[in-house]
Amino acid sequence: MAQADTQISDKQLYLDDLVVGQRFTSRAHVVDATEIKAFARQFDPQPFHLDEETAKRAFFGELVASGWHTAAITMRLLVETGLPLAGGIIAAAREASWPKPTRPGDTLTVTSEIEEIMPSRSRRDRGTLKVRSKTRNQRDEIVQVLLAKLIVPRRVERP
Amino acid sequence: MAQADTQISDKQLYLDDLVVGQRFTSRAHVVDATEIKAFARQFDPQPFHLDEETAKRAFFGELVASGWHTAAITMRLLVETGLPLAGGIIAAAREASWPKPTRPGDTLTVTSEIEEIMPSRSRRDRGTLKVRSKTRNQRDEIVQVLLAKLIVPRRVERP
Repeated sequence: MAQADTQISDKQLYLDDLVVGQRFTSRAHVVDATEIKAFARQFDPQPFHLDEETAKRAFFGELVASGWHTAAITMRLLVETGLPLAGGIIAAAREASWPKPTRPGDTLTVTSEIEEIMPSRSRRDRGTLKVRSKTRNQRDEIVQVLLAKLIVPRRVERP
Repeated sequence: MAQADTQISDKQLYLDDLVVGQRFTSRAHVVDATEIKAFARQFDPQPFHLDEETAKRAFFGELVASGWHTAAITMRLLVETGLPLAGGIIAAAREASWPKPTRPGDTLTVTSEIEEIMPSRSRRDRGTLKVRSKTRNQRDEIVQVLLAKLIVPRRVERP
């Protein structure tokens, strides 16, 4: 049961505040060639991420962002505006796939949907959340699907 | 059948050169607090990644690296010395988990093991490789497990 997008706010959400199907949308971020190359030089120095000319002769045939760069941008969007969880975004595990590469000039937006809410059996002050975050470009193409298991605090009543 | 570690070399390996159980070990990288905070400011601005003092009162109780930072360092180690594949390291999908956080001063090393080799049925010039990469710290604790499906070129005989 998908619900209308939740408005971004300063509200810090606890596990008890969330419902399955709830959705959150981040602000947009425009990716440029300079940041694609800077990330690649630091973390993923491969020809198709470093230089337009050599990229033409490599796998993608053009300059594209490292998948880890798309993931890092997605994380910043989630932290800043995309998923206002109390205690922050703390992942126990994640799966990511990149159906399409991110290109210079792309405008990325992340939409997250709550898929499962599991209160902890052993600890009444927290629980686990399964969230699927899809990062889309300006053509509404999905460049990354991220499935994360997050640790989220509960509203604990003090006696 | 695990084999002895393959020595790092300049050799570019094709799908046909690999065997299940083959292992590769990267060079080591020492992570410092400055780079942990720099990555966090750019991509994961949460208190437990940004500042030692505020981290004491947050989830981990100390400054730790963003999981995406551990992933990015792992990628650099794989690209530079950890997995000498012809055509580069091109992932179709990945799963990552972080059993323990990376801390300032940790020395990280990545060991990768070939789990599955699947020649493409439709394209004789490539195939898919399943590789499990474990990133360990100096205490031999695993800080990240990465399972990747990589696209690897084959040695194509020209008629």
